[in-house]
Amino acid sequence: MSAPETVVEANQAPGTRSERKQAAIVAAAAAVFLDTGYAGASMDEIALRSGVSKQTVYKHFTSKEALFTAVISQMMGAAAATVHHDLPQVENSEELKAYLLDYGKRLLTVALTPGLMQLRRLVIAEAQRFPSLARQLYSGGAGRALEVMATVFESLADKKLLVLDDPLVAAAQLNWLLMGDPVNRVMMLGNDAIPTPAEIKRHVAAAIATFLAAYLHPDQR
Amino acid sequence: MSAPETVVEANQAPGTRSERKQAAIVAAAAAVFLDTGYAGASMDEIALRSGVSKQTVYKHFTSKEALFTAVISQMMGAAAATVHHDLPQVENSEELKAYLLDYGKRLLTVALTPGLMQLRRLVIAEAQRFPSLARQLYSGGAGRALEVMATVFESLADKKLLVLDDPLVAAAQLNWLLMGDPVNRVMMLGNDAIPTPAEIKRHVAAAIATFLAAYLHPDQR
Repeated sequence: MSAPETVVEANQAPGTRSERKQAAIVAAAAAVFLDTGYAGASMDEIALRSGVSKQTVYKHFTSKEALFTAVISQMMGAAAATVHHDLPQVENSEELKAYLLDYGKRLLTVALTPGLMQLRRLVIAEAQRFPSLARQLYSGGAGRALEVMATVFESLADKKLLVLDDPLVAAAQLNWLLMGDPVNRVMMLGNDAIPTPAEIKRHVAAAIATFLAAYLHPDQR
Repeated sequence: MSAPETVVEANQAPGTRSERKQAAIVAAAAAVFLDTGYAGASMDEIALRSGVSKQTVYKHFTSKEALFTAVISQMMGAAAATVHHDLPQVENSEELKAYLLDYGKRLLTVALTPGLMQLRRLVIAEAQRFPSLARQLYSGGAGRALEVMATVFESLADKKLLVLDDPLVAAAQLNWLLMGDPVNRVMMLGNDAIPTPAEIKRHVAAAIATFLAAYLHPDQR
């Protein structure tokens, strides 16, 4: 996961001409990959759309796979920065519920965008031929969300707000109570099935209610 | 959804030569589609593998899409027959729990096969270009599972075994508590991530515990 970030961070100070070129290449590459799929994307087209020579593209990214890795990293990183944050300041069941409702709303709002849903489609389509791409999307997506949330849950259990056998199992259950139905609908029924903010709110409320019924500490009931 | 079934049922009595040919065509088509994807599959190859002429393939199925529809219907129908059945004979919380554990085990065992997972990958890959294929997989898969389970839940609520606001929401939550994590892992990490029977058992037990914490009727606790 960290390879493309390392490239970005090591080569240039922010705002240099080289960094701006690299950002333009990643943005153009994202558009081309999402349009044409991984196998169909050409480095010529990416160079053309980013306004640099193909040689310059290869100076920044040694291969199409390295470039796609940078696209995944950039798209997932931007999403994760919106969703994940420090341990929540939560001291009672009211605050816990508010925190989980807010988390669920942010997660669905950020994940259920046409760009990320198309990235998911395209990575699933190529998972057999290019397993490393899908593994990266997993690490940056559900894999990361589950680990971050498991850590949050451990601190909430320490505060006697939650009771759990296995924080990772609880994190996975919350994640799929939130994401399962809407993501599957969008995968199968297309971007028209992306829920509205009002639908997200209702869906998240039902998911959090089920989660808390299972995991809220008895002292908080 | 019903078009290919209608073709199968209307044209031939069971076991006729024509029906055996049709079954051979569908089986060969399934193998070709899963191997090469929808766009890459050729009717010539399907005819070759099923041992009939291309003309015969077209006599049974007017287009590649009709043939793919028959493949989806056949694969999903076989899976659904294993998972769904009549309203369960369930009169108390012990029997309810046993029924749900058995349902979860059957659902995951049937759904998490290399064939159905590959069908899912391929339909997601083609969902933009051929939206009707994905809609069919949705109707026959999660869509159908949710409707059947919502009906079961209504009868369980009538018996005061469950309490629910919305049977479809409860059905979707159970479905994704069961399916979300393992299906996502297999989509992203490949068929090596298909869980073992022991892993399925543990995963299902945790899912059912959370579901019952939220929905078991208070009289049953």
